[in-house]
Amino acid sequence: MSSDIKARIIKQMAPDLEQVEKALEENLAPNLDLVRKIASHLLFSGGKRLRPLLMIHSARMCGYATGFEILFSIIFEYLHAATLLHDDVVDEADMRRGKRAAHTKWSAPQVVLTGDFLLARALAIAAKTREPRVISVIANITQAMSQGEIDQLEKKGQTDLSEGQYLEIIERKTAVLIQGACRSGAIISKASRKKEEGLASYGYHLGMAFQMADDLLDYTATALELGKNPGADMREGKLTLPLIHSLAKANDTDREWMHKVIADPVFDQNRFEDLREKLLTLGGIAYTQTLEKDHVAKAKASLEIFEDSNSKDLLHLIADYSIERKV
Amino acid sequence: MSSDIKARIIKQMAPDLEQVEKALEENLAPNLDLVRKIASHLLFSGGKRLRPLLMIHSARMCGYATGFEILFSIIFEYLHAATLLHDDVVDEADMRRGKRAAHTKWSAPQVVLTGDFLLARALAIAAKTREPRVISVIANITQAMSQGEIDQLEKKGQTDLSEGQYLEIIERKTAVLIQGACRSGAIISKASRKKEEGLASYGYHLGMAFQMADDLLDYTATALELGKNPGADMREGKLTLPLIHSLAKANDTDREWMHKVIADPVFDQNRFEDLREKLLTLGGIAYTQTLEKDHVAKAKASLEIFEDSNSKDLLHLIADYSIERKV
Repeated sequence: MSSDIKARIIKQMAPDLEQVEKALEENLAPNLDLVRKIASHLLFSGGKRLRPLLMIHSARMCGYATGFEILFSIIFEYLHAATLLHDDVVDEADMRRGKRAAHTKWSAPQVVLTGDFLLARALAIAAKTREPRVISVIANITQAMSQGEIDQLEKKGQTDLSEGQYLEIIERKTAVLIQGACRSGAIISKASRKKEEGLASYGYHLGMAFQMADDLLDYTATALELGKNPGADMREGKLTLPLIHSLAKANDTDREWMHKVIADPVFDQNRFEDLREKLLTLGGIAYTQTLEKDHVAKAKASLEIFEDSNSKDLLHLIADYSIERKV
Repeated sequence: MSSDIKARIIKQMAPDLEQVEKALEENLAPNLDLVRKIASHLLFSGGKRLRPLLMIHSARMCGYATGFEILFSIIFEYLHAATLLHDDVVDEADMRRGKRAAHTKWSAPQVVLTGDFLLARALAIAAKTREPRVISVIANITQAMSQGEIDQLEKKGQTDLSEGQYLEIIERKTAVLIQGACRSGAIISKASRKKEEGLASYGYHLGMAFQMADDLLDYTATALELGKNPGADMREGKLTLPLIHSLAKANDTDREWMHKVIADPVFDQNRFEDLREKLLTLGGIAYTQTLEKDHVAKAKASLEIFEDSNSKDLLHLIADYSIERKV
């Protein structure tokens, strides 16, 4: 089923995707070659362009048809790339999208400043929408993400993270940006408040499902599929739902063993396999999948107020795919 | 004369300044205590609030009188603080406004993310102006500053920096932000293009004079006056105008000696005193002062189109003070 959905999504997206890629290249417009290099390293390394495509189809579902939706949609890819660059420095992660993270090729200051540049490019295009509420959306996203990252930094290595704390983290880390892209599609279309809230709700639930699936893949996928080593979150001291739920369900012996595995600075592949097994038997994996499916159902239900259309079909497919995907 | 100007500026500014301080506190609104701590460390450590006050009086000169100019003015202090936080990480400077730089008390990621948060707060308030052109101004500032910093990083330690390259650096580093604050005062007032360009020109020349004076103080002021050690720019490998001009005027022997002093990783106070002497005799100090005065004259001339008013008086005083100040 998964590859079938993917094929249908790609087919529907292809013409827009080409235009989005072109707009991303044309609007980068740096004065310095180095900025282009650092920004391009991340921007053109096989991103799915999920956020731009969500904005485009959100706008079209609200009747927007000026053609400017392509230009405006890249706001959210630049913003996404800017946050990834700042996160790379924060996380000291070595791999991103299967390539070396930007900060391992360039200095942290260069990466931080290129992130600032990309945010500036996003703002310059956002100003062209002439919709102050799009700016408010970007402000909210940046505020939530920066505080979320600081909060997550504080919580690093904390082995008693609750499910509630986890949900708050992924909301700020992922859902707020995806929600903002969908909401902005409604704003530029001057859609009714009801439609705007419908799309915002879709984006929120999609974002939550998407991040949960991502966190699950860190335990279930292979290194080749992921483009980075599995178990990366655990090694960085980040507790995600499969582990949090399993810890809550574990008996004292299992919990103690799991805490030891998490806290050990040395990564052991065999022991990681044992941990995966534990997440299966203790139900952490199944529980995460249940929550994912619930968010996908809610995302789709949020679109009920819209008439049927190609764009609506596509947003449904994307919701399904968000948790079916292998990468 | 200098302390007289200062007294007159302070007297005229006092009532607004109090309201600006209040607005800065009230609108910070972080969810996390740590973010408040890091942001406050810089925001409330004796900044002159130059940029907010420039915006306020630019707006008033254009007839703006809704009272919202206080709120809108803090956009430029948050933006300024955000860039200082990112610069602190970049420069690895130890002191800022006489206090330890934020990144020496907190980790670089925490400081970067708090900078992002402050930028987000600036944007949230900018959205309230409902003027997309204010957003364009912020985008231009951020774009110029981030690229300028990257460029300056590249040029660090380069001993053959030209006067033209120096002027480009300080334009992006300082003048663009001050210019943006003045221009935005005109934009929120819906002033004529002529008035807007007049204020933008004032801000540009003030910014250039201001940064040149700052760079000069690094050679002429005491550590107590500066709140940091003099000679800091040289030690960081940043060539500024007094040195650039003196190098251009020096004979081979002097130039060779100066290059040796600049390149030496060990800082010697006595040799630094000799360098100061050299900048006096070779004319680098006088030349910088001439350029400063020229920018101040041009800044004032840019305001000729405006009728006399208290705000215009104040902007004139600030222009004079920008190069008279000792800190």
